Amino acid sequence: MTRTIGVTEVVLRDAHQSLIAIRMAMEDMVGACEDIDQAGYWSVECWGGATYDACIRYLNEDPWERLRTFRKLLPNSKLQMLLRGQNLLGYRHYEDMVVDKFVEKSAENGMDVFRVFDALNDPRNMAQAMAAVKKAGKHAQGTICYTISPLHTTEGYIKLAGQLLDMGAESIALKDMAALLQPQPAYDIVKGIKDTYGDVQINVHCHATTGVTLVSLMKAIEAGADVVDTSISSMSLGPGHNPTESLVAMLEGTEYTTNLDPARLIKIRDHFAAVRPKYKAFESATLVDTDIFSSQIPGGMLSNMESQLKQQGAGDRIKEVMEEVPLVKADAGHPPLVTPSSQIVGTQAVFNVLMGRYKVMTGEFADLMLGYYGECIGERNPEVVEIAHQQAKKEPITVRPADLLTPEWDTLVSDAGKLEGDNGSDEDVLTYAMFPSVAPGFFKTRDEGPKNVGKTPEQLDKEKEATSGNSQAVTGPITYKVSLGGRDHSVTVERA
Amino acid sequence: MTRTIGVTEVVLRDAHQSLIAIRMAMEDMVGACEDIDQAGYWSVECWGGATYDACIRYLNEDPWERLRTFRKLLPNSKLQMLLRGQNLLGYRHYEDMVVDKFVEKSAENGMDVFRVFDALNDPRNMAQAMAAVKKAGKHAQGTICYTISPLHTTEGYIKLAGQLLDMGAESIALKDMAALLQPQPAYDIVKGIKDTYGDVQINVHCHATTGVTLVSLMKAIEAGADVVDTSISSMSLGPGHNPTESLVAMLEGTEYTTNLDPARLIKIRDHFAAVRPKYKAFESATLVDTDIFSSQIPGGMLSNMESQLKQQGAGDRIKEVMEEVPLVKADAGHPPLVTPSSQIVGTQAVFNVLMGRYKVMTGEFADLMLGYYGECIGERNPEVVEIAHQQAKKEPITVRPADLLTPEWDTLVSDAGKLEGDNGSDEDVLTYAMFPSVAPGFFKTRDEGPKNVGKTPEQLDKEKEATSGNSQAVTGPITYKVSLGGRDHSVTVERA
Repeated sequence: MTRTIGVTEVVLRDAHQSLIAIRMAMEDMVGACEDIDQAGYWSVECWGGATYDACIRYLNEDPWERLRTFRKLLPNSKLQMLLRGQNLLGYRHYEDMVVDKFVEKSAENGMDVFRVFDALNDPRNMAQAMAAVKKAGKHAQGTICYTISPLHTTEGYIKLAGQLLDMGAESIALKDMAALLQPQPAYDIVKGIKDTYGDVQINVHCHATTGVTLVSLMKAIEAGADVVDTSISSMSLGPGHNPTESLVAMLEGTEYTTNLDPARLIKIRDHFAAVRPKYKAFESATLVDTDIFSSQIPGGMLSNMESQLKQQGAGDRIKEVMEEVPLVKADAGHPPLVTPSSQIVGTQAVFNVLMGRYKVMTGEFADLMLGYYGECIGERNPEVVEIAHQQAKKEPITVRPADLLTPEWDTLVSDAGKLEGDNGSDEDVLTYAMFPSVAPGFFKTRDEGPKNVGKTPEQLDKEKEATSGNSQAVTGPITYKVSLGGRDHSVTVERA
Repeated sequence: MTRTIGVTEVVLRDAHQSLIAIRMAMEDMVGACEDIDQAGYWSVECWGGATYDACIRYLNEDPWERLRTFRKLLPNSKLQMLLRGQNLLGYRHYEDMVVDKFVEKSAENGMDVFRVFDALNDPRNMAQAMAAVKKAGKHAQGTICYTISPLHTTEGYIKLAGQLLDMGAESIALKDMAALLQPQPAYDIVKGIKDTYGDVQINVHCHATTGVTLVSLMKAIEAGADVVDTSISSMSLGPGHNPTESLVAMLEGTEYTTNLDPARLIKIRDHFAAVRPKYKAFESATLVDTDIFSSQIPGGMLSNMESQLKQQGAGDRIKEVMEEVPLVKADAGHPPLVTPSSQIVGTQAVFNVLMGRYKVMTGEFADLMLGYYGECIGERNPEVVEIAHQQAKKEPITVRPADLLTPEWDTLVSDAGKLEGDNGSDEDVLTYAMFPSVAPGFFKTRDEGPKNVGKTPEQLDKEKEATSGNSQAVTGPITYKVSLGGRDHSVTVERA
C-alpha cells in the first residue's frame, strides 16, 4: 500500500524570494512553465506579498498580468498564493470590503489555493479572508505559523488547527518560515491534528536554513502529512527550501511516493540552473545556520538589528540586544518572530538597550502591546501595556483590530483614479491600496514594459573574464587622463 | 530512555577533501583542535590517502608530522583514518609486510580507529590490514561500500557485515561515498545487521550531495546505528557531509541525543568559517545533485569522462558513454563505482564508444576483468574476460591478489634510502612506497617547511576590490600600447 504525497513547488515564489531577493523576472520563469505544469505537482506557489512588491518596485511588471500569464501557461495546475490575512499583501489591516475585493479579483485572475496566515496566529485576523476565499469557491488553507517559545506547545497548535477548521479551512498549513521545525514536533503536531480532527489535509512548509527540515518533512509524512513544499534543486537549500528531487529520492522504497515525473524535474532544474547566475548579485550567502535554535532569533532579524546598532555607532552591543529580545518577546505575549512582529520586537530591543528599557517605545511596538495587531498566545505584561498606553496616548483594545476600521474602498478607488497611469481597474486600486508609496511610480512607468534586473549572458561573460586569472584586465573602453612629455592627453583604452 | 548517538567529526579529513580539493594546510586546522577535542565526539577523522597525498604533493607537509601534531593537540580524542585495505593509501596492492608496517607505524604515531575498506568489497583485500590493526591493539572497523546495482541487496550487505565480523571487526562502517544511501535501505541494512549479529557497533558515513542523506542518518539511527559521520556546518553540504549542528538539532526531542557541547561546536564552526574563504579557488561548485539516482554515475566520474572525451574532440558523445557505463559495469561484475573502479570503468566506457566495444582495453580494465583487483559481487562476463586475457597476455586469477606478491619491504627501504632528503625512518619508506613519484620531490624540499596554498587576507581583499562594483578598475601597473596623434607610445597606467 503506497500513499501518494502531494508536492507544492515553490520555485516561482518563495524560492527566489528567499535566495535572490525576489528579483526574478517573469520572462525568466516562462520557459519552465510547461514542464512545471506537466510534472504532477499538487499545486504551484507563484504569488505573494513580496513578489507583488518586487514586481512594481524593481521590475516594472504588473503583478496581475504576471498572475494571468501563470494562469495561461499552467492550465492544468492549481495556482497557490500566500495571503497575509487581514493585511492582504500589505503591512496594515484593511477594512473587510478591501479584503473581499482582493480575494475576488485574485480568484477571477486565476488563483486557486489561498494560504491564509497571520503573523500572531490570531484567527480573527484570518477569518474575513478565509470567508472570502470560500465565497469565491476556491481552496481556503488555514495556516499555523510555527515558532518555539515557553508557551508554544503541540497542544496549542492542535487547538489552533481546530479554530482554523471551524472557520471553514479546507486544509491546514504548518508553516515553518525560520526552519525551526524539528523532526519530533513535526511528527507530533501532524499526528495530533490527524488524531483530533480526522483526516484533514495537512500541508507542511519548511525552509532549509538549519539543514534539518527534510528530516522534519519525512517525520511529518510518517505522521500523515498530505502535501509538502519543496523547490527544484537548482533553486533550493540555504534560506530557501528542500530540493524537490531530494524529496523524491527520500521516499523511494518507502510506503510513500510523489508520482512526480523525473524527466520534467530535470528540465525544470536545468532551466533554473541556467537562469540563476543572472541574479548572482542578489544571492544570499547563507548555506546553513543553526544558531536560531539557541538564539531564537531569525537570521534576517539579527542582521536588521545589527545594522540598526551600527547606524547608532553601537555595533558592539549586539550581545546585549540578543539578550533583550527574549524579554521583549515575553512582554509582548510571545508573538512568532516573522514579518512584521520580528521587526517590531527587534527594533524595540535595540531601543531598550540604547535608551533604557521602554524609555522610548516605537509606535509599532506600542500598537503591538495595545492589541492593534491582534492577540498573541501569551498575556502581555500589564506594566508594559500601561507604558504603551501613556506613550502612545491610545487605549488598549480587545476587539478584532479590523473592527475599528471604517469602509475605505470608495476612498481608495477615488485616490487611485487620480494617479497618472492608473488604468481604472479594481486591480490597480488594490495595487495602490497595498503599496501606496510604490504604486504611483509604477503606474507612471508601466507602459515602458518589464525590466529585467538580472545580468545578460554578455555581462556575465565580461565579469567572468574580469575575475578569472587576470583581474586587472581592461574589458571595455575607459578614458584616462594621461600625462606624457609634460602634456595632458585624453586617451581611450580598449582591449584590441 | 535516551540513547546517545556517537558522532565522528570529519572536518579535518573528508570535509576539506570533498569541498576544497584536500588543500587545507595544517596551520589552518590547529586553532580548532582544542574545541574539537573537548566537544564530545566519538572520534575525529583526520587522516587518509588523499590528505596524505596532498600533504606531500601541494603542501610540503610531512603527513606523519601532521598525524603526530593531531595526536598532541587532540589528547582526549580517538583519531580515525580511512585505510584502503591492501592498497593502504596508494593505488596498488602491497605485500603483507608493508601493510603490517604501515599499520604499526600509524598506531605508533597516534592513530586509534582504522576504517578499513576495499573498493570492490572483497573481504580478502581487507583481511591483512584488519589483522594488523588488531595486533596493534587498535580499533579495527570493517567497511561496507554502499552502491546500487541489480545484484546489490540488503541481504548481500548483511552477509558482508558477517564476513567482516568473522575477520575480527570491532565495528562495521556503512560507507556511502556517493550519497546514494536512501532512507529505506539505510534502515533496512542497519536493522538487518543488528537483527542478525546482535548489538555490533555500526557507524554510518554519508555524503550530502543528493540532499537526502540526513534523513538516511535518521533512519539508520532509528534502526540502531551507533555512530554517524558529520562535518561542522561551515564545512558541510554539497559534495561534503551533513552538518554536525543539524544532526544535533535533528535529534532534539527524540529518544536519541548526541551529548555534543553546543558552545564548542559554535567555536569550531566559526574557526572554519573564517578559514574557508582562503581556499575559494579550490571550491567545488556542486550544491545538490540527484542525477546519480538515475545515471548511477558519481559526479566526479562523469566529469572525468567528459574531459577525456573533450581531449579526443568527442565532447558531444557523453550520452553514448553514459549508456555504455552500465554495460561495462555489468561485464565487470558490478563493482561499486569508487576510486579506483570508477576511473577504470569510466575510461573503458570512453574507449568502447570511441573505438568500438573492447577493441582496445586499458591495462587496468584488463586487470579488473582478470581478478587482479579482487572479486566483485557478480560474475564477470566470460567473453570479456577472454578478450582481456588475449589483449593483456595475463592469466585470470582467483586467489587473493596480494598472494601473488613477493616480499618488497627490504627493496623499498633500500630504494627510499637512496633518495635525497630521506630521513631514514620507516615512515619515509612508507611515504615512498605509497607515492613513489611524488615522494622524491617532497623529501628534497621538506626542509623548507609547510606551504599554505590558501590565499592571505590581503590577497582576498584585493580580489574583492577588483570584483566589487567596478570590475574594470585598474588595480596595478599595466602597460598599454597607445596610438596618439598617429604615433605609438608605450604607456604605463596605475591607480594613483
